[in-house]
Amino acid sequence: MKKIAIVGITGYSGLELFRLLQSHPAVEITKICATSHLGEKLSEVFPQFESLTELTIIEFDAQEIMEKCDAVFFATSSGVSKKLALDFIEQDFPVIDLSGDFRLENPEIYKKWYKNTSADIEYLLKAEYHLADIGQAKANYIANPGCYATATLLALYPLVKNQLIELDSIIVDAKSGLSGAGKSLSVSSHFVNVADNMSMYKINSHQHIPEIAQQLKRWNPNFKALQFSTSLIPVSRGIFVSTYAKVADAVDFASLQSAYEQAFADKPFVRVRRQMPQLSEVIGTNFCDIGLAYNPVTNVVTVVSVIDNLMKGAAGQAVQNFNQLFGYEENLGLDFIPSL
Amino acid sequence: MKKIAIVGITGYSGLELFRLLQSHPAVEITKICATSHLGEKLSEVFPQFESLTELTIIEFDAQEIMEKCDAVFFATSSGVSKKLALDFIEQDFPVIDLSGDFRLENPEIYKKWYKNTSADIEYLLKAEYHLADIGQAKANYIANPGCYATATLLALYPLVKNQLIELDSIIVDAKSGLSGAGKSLSVSSHFVNVADNMSMYKINSHQHIPEIAQQLKRWNPNFKALQFSTSLIPVSRGIFVSTYAKVADAVDFASLQSAYEQAFADKPFVRVRRQMPQLSEVIGTNFCDIGLAYNPVTNVVTVVSVIDNLMKGAAGQAVQNFNQLFGYEENLGLDFIPSL
Amino acid sequence: MKKIAIVGITGYSGLELFRLLQSHPAVEITKICATSHLGEKLSEVFPQFESLTELTIIEFDAQEIMEKCDAVFFATSSGVSKKLALDFIEQDFPVIDLSGDFRLENPEIYKKWYKNTSADIEYLLKAEYHLADIGQAKANYIANPGCYATATLLALYPLVKNQLIELDSIIVDAKSGLSGAGKSLSVSSHFVNVADNMSMYKINSHQHIPEIAQQLKRWNPNFKALQFSTSLIPVSRGIFVSTYAKVADAVDFASLQSAYEQAFADKPFVRVRRQMPQLSEVIGTNFCDIGLAYNPVTNVVTVVSVIDNLMKGAAGQAVQNFNQLFGYEENLGLDFIPSL
Amino acid sequence: MKKIAIVGITGYSGLELFRLLQSHPAVEITKICATSHLGEKLSEVFPQFESLTELTIIEFDAQEIMEKCDAVFFATSSGVSKKLALDFIEQDFPVIDLSGDFRLENPEIYKKWYKNTSADIEYLLKAEYHLADIGQAKANYIANPGCYATATLLALYPLVKNQLIELDSIIVDAKSGLSGAGKSLSVSSHFVNVADNMSMYKINSHQHIPEIAQQLKRWNPNFKALQFSTSLIPVSRGIFVSTYAKVADAVDFASLQSAYEQAFADKPFVRVRRQMPQLSEVIGTNFCDIGLAYNPVTNVVTVVSVIDNLMKGAAGQAVQNFNQLFGYEENLGLDFIPSL
Repeated sequence: MKKIAIVGITGYSGLELFRLLQSHPAVEITKICATSHLGEKLSEVFPQFESLTELTIIEFDAQEIMEKCDAVFFATSSGVSKKLALDFIEQDFPVIDLSGDFRLENPEIYKKWYKNTSADIEYLLKAEYHLADIGQAKANYIANPGCYATATLLALYPLVKNQLIELDSIIVDAKSGLSGAGKSLSVSSHFVNVADNMSMYKINSHQHIPEIAQQLKRWNPNFKALQFSTSLIPVSRGIFVSTYAKVADAVDFASLQSAYEQAFADKPFVRVRRQMPQLSEVIGTNFCDIGLAYNPVTNVVTVVSVIDNLMKGAAGQAVQNFNQLFGYEENLGLDFIPSL
Repeated sequence: MKKIAIVGITGYSGLELFRLLQSHPAVEITKICATSHLGEKLSEVFPQFESLTELTIIEFDAQEIMEKCDAVFFATSSGVSKKLALDFIEQDFPVIDLSGDFRLENPEIYKKWYKNTSADIEYLLKAEYHLADIGQAKANYIANPGCYATATLLALYPLVKNQLIELDSIIVDAKSGLSGAGKSLSVSSHFVNVADNMSMYKINSHQHIPEIAQQLKRWNPNFKALQFSTSLIPVSRGIFVSTYAKVADAVDFASLQSAYEQAFADKPFVRVRRQMPQLSEVIGTNFCDIGLAYNPVTNVVTVVSVIDNLMKGAAGQAVQNFNQLFGYEENLGLDFIPSL
Repeated sequence: MKKIAIVGITGYSGLELFRLLQSHPAVEITKICATSHLGEKLSEVFPQFESLTELTIIEFDAQEIMEKCDAVFFATSSGVSKKLALDFIEQDFPVIDLSGDFRLENPEIYKKWYKNTSADIEYLLKAEYHLADIGQAKANYIANPGCYATATLLALYPLVKNQLIELDSIIVDAKSGLSGAGKSLSVSSHFVNVADNMSMYKINSHQHIPEIAQQLKRWNPNFKALQFSTSLIPVSRGIFVSTYAKVADAVDFASLQSAYEQAFADKPFVRVRRQMPQLSEVIGTNFCDIGLAYNPVTNVVTVVSVIDNLMKGAAGQAVQNFNQLFGYEENLGLDFIPSL
Repeated sequence: MKKIAIVGITGYSGLELFRLLQSHPAVEITKICATSHLGEKLSEVFPQFESLTELTIIEFDAQEIMEKCDAVFFATSSGVSKKLALDFIEQDFPVIDLSGDFRLENPEIYKKWYKNTSADIEYLLKAEYHLADIGQAKANYIANPGCYATATLLALYPLVKNQLIELDSIIVDAKSGLSGAGKSLSVSSHFVNVADNMSMYKINSHQHIPEIAQQLKRWNPNFKALQFSTSLIPVSRGIFVSTYAKVADAVDFASLQSAYEQAFADKPFVRVRRQMPQLSEVIGTNFCDIGLAYNPVTNVVTVVSVIDNLMKGAAGQAVQNFNQLFGYEENLGLDFIPSL
């Protein structure tokens, strides 16, 4: 039984972590931290948790967490863990960081995309950017991938790794529901502006672009850049990614399909589908479902990948990384079945 | 480990039963029956279940079920179990019936509201109409209450049982999401007709009215009739019931609140709230949340009750009744935590 | 051609007024006022109006408006017109006020429900609270009714006026879309909190209750109080009101229906329907559609009324009142046809 | 005053035509035809039209229409006008055909994509495929473009016509609301399957692909093929098209923007925007709004175009074509202002 702390409990990812870890058979949540609602019961602030927990929101205290807990999850906004997590790094204390602060190894790139200075490079290099479905988490500081990045990288992995496409032809048209933008109130999250609407945002400037590029380059050093756009769709949860690329040498659908099936053969949470997946088929679960099609007329492969942005795209993947780090079964506490 | 069969697997309630029972620690689903898709794998017909089950849809066979299983769930349309379930009743084999066929003890009333003949009265009398949160299931044939009826009856129980209201003043304005109407295709379930819309339907003629009246009369023989209306709101899941009644002798809010808290003191799935509950706070769970307010100007008590129609209003309550029948902890396999 | 000014252009009602008056054949919008975006073009702030107008947002100036315009519409928040509109009242300059500031004739009642002091009573008494579909606007200061009040009063008018119901038995269960709450950002208007959700709010305390009561008392001095509740449903526009009352002396459906048809016989915007109206059937229009049903078992009449809260519930009714005041055809500029 | 007939009144496009033509100042609708609800009043079948029309649905009769009307609109399903419209072609009677039957000049291509035989080629060649915003309608038989095709072609016109892009690099990721698929009931249009969901469909096989290709080839004979995909998003109305292409010779954003502004300089219904348009900004109007961005890192231009599929994508464009054909102002009866 591992004792864990959640920092940033009041955001969407923090609440989803609470939901997952509260029923995780190997975990006891012992501390929940935030900067607001200090001293209040979680079930008073979020009445949906009434009767489910007696936990009280407390102030963050790194020493206290290291003394009393076995691991800490950061579900904080950008710019927080780069300050608060340094003590943990120095003590090599297990951290799963859901924010973007330690995902990029290059401080210049961080500065360019986050409009802010990163943590010192010595700290950055201690962190492991780890897609839970590719390889095994090793470092004590896990930089949990971003939601868009997760869906995009899993869609591109077999193509880029196996050199099946023209690397400069990748076009990613990604769509997200509203929880992806977090809880902060803005004109663009008001119901009246979202319902019956769709809009493209952060044109050529979404902060998940550099982490996708960094990872693709690790898989294939010849990779240079990808065209990546993000749009809001009127759903609360979910990311739907449409990826297009010219096939390197014209291949048929069967061989592309086979490349995906091999790449994810033993991965419990990546389902290579025979038809295009629908977003609703993964909501509430830790699955990333992938479908593909090849168009011989244009020589383009279309890949659709769908995830629940708060599960596989945040809290679910974080728990999966935690399971790997502590040697538990990968799907422990994560075996949610999709509903309607 | 109980072996169970689900009859009517392809409907919303059947699929939700599958979701619940598949991860229920004391249950093994061994048979799933339907009249369509015979011989097909469940995960082919419903690809969201890919990698989660190898079960194949088979034809219903009562003898086979009684030989190989410990219990059977009927998640069939109106009019099916009154024919197919008779063998089970004769053998006193455990049945949880989610349909309306055995909810009414009076064949005349069934005929009036369902426009059809009921099962013979000798069979009807073997069935127990059982709200899982009030009392303990005893009979081997459980008539699981309807979704509207569940939310309405739990809202009215303390008032009617304790004679706190004028019995002829009850007005129930109930709203449901679209899954409540089942999967059948109709003009009224087309997305374009539901989104941005709301409509009242089955005016003074909803088939859950007689089961509500039957149960209220059991709690208080002076009860005669209630005004009950049903409207569709543009959500997939959920029932939101607003109940109004004149208070018998003017009482204050505190004493009404206290009556509810006492009535549901030891009930894990009924949460008497301090403020009005929101629908989203129970979706995906087996909770019925209840809030109330008293208006001294009009002497009216307002009660809001919310449930997930497929959980507490169908499959969740069915599993809870199953747990009671087989002596398991009431919340076994049902401890879902609400999400955002 | 009347020159008009809109004060409070940036809110939902202000924008809807712009939409209506911009294509009104007898109106030229000459001034649009707000407290933000001063000096900016309307089409820059609201790009949906690109190519449709060259108007610039300016500061409010009562003298300037009285010199250059023929009438002014206030689409301001509560508490604004009670300060800014006094000059117009003193000069008897035509004002259509969409806010609640001049709807109540009793300063004590205003204070109780709005938690604020009203304008002086001498000013209040100059204003005419005018439902555009009942009678003819006469005063130069029109207090345009609230959205909930409009739908509720039109539903109750034939019953209360003609003494068809027990006056102390009225229960109104009203639901609104999100634009009804205005543009201000709040947790309760965030898409994630609205979609897939429904919630009751302002329990027994909605500020439209006193204007409904004031008007009902004018129609029938025996009226005392009504039970009125308000809930949010996940739509952008629209109000759906379910009204229940005990019928005074048991009457049949036909005579109730006939009372409604007579009451609204020559009213172009009130459609007494033969079946229950759906919300979508009036969206984008100035209609109030009404349907009714009588239940002989409970002796209760159910009345459903639906409106577009920004049209009949705000800007549409305001333009209709303007038409009456200036002697235009009642439906000039208002003959919108419902779409799907 | 032109007398017109609408064939296929009961579908979405037919009803939208009714809405537009009913308030068109130069039109009188005299005949509405369908194959169902014959002899019924339109306002009985679609109660939202109560009090707005006395028209009755009648059987189609070509001779009668040619004798009594000045033009006919076909808003029929695929495969209908290729049979019913031949008489009109032979008499050179004005037809606006919203279906796909006469859009393709090549019978082989029709057969491949529509899985059916087309009208005889002599008839096909009499029809003019006419985007209302590019050039002037001339032929008496107008094949009104498809909804996806309209949004895609307007987005690509300046790029393809002016040779600004690598022609083999076009990727179009198009999304549609549910009314685009018409009224027919299917599992994929059930509210529960659409809400909170997104799905790609008709992979590499949408029937609008060949009309897009045919038109692009007319603009630039070097054009070969485009990658085009279609997804459903949970809205009732609207098409949101994201188009990507490699710029031919690296150009800057300003020169691309300028090409669009020139191309649509005098087109009242195409608004070249300075920022990316949102879908809601055109709903209920005949506008096509277009925004673009250039990414120097990938040398890709991103173009977003949005339309209301039933207006610019069907009935609105049809009326615009009608206006051109009969010499009316292009925007007569079409000057709808966007609402919230």
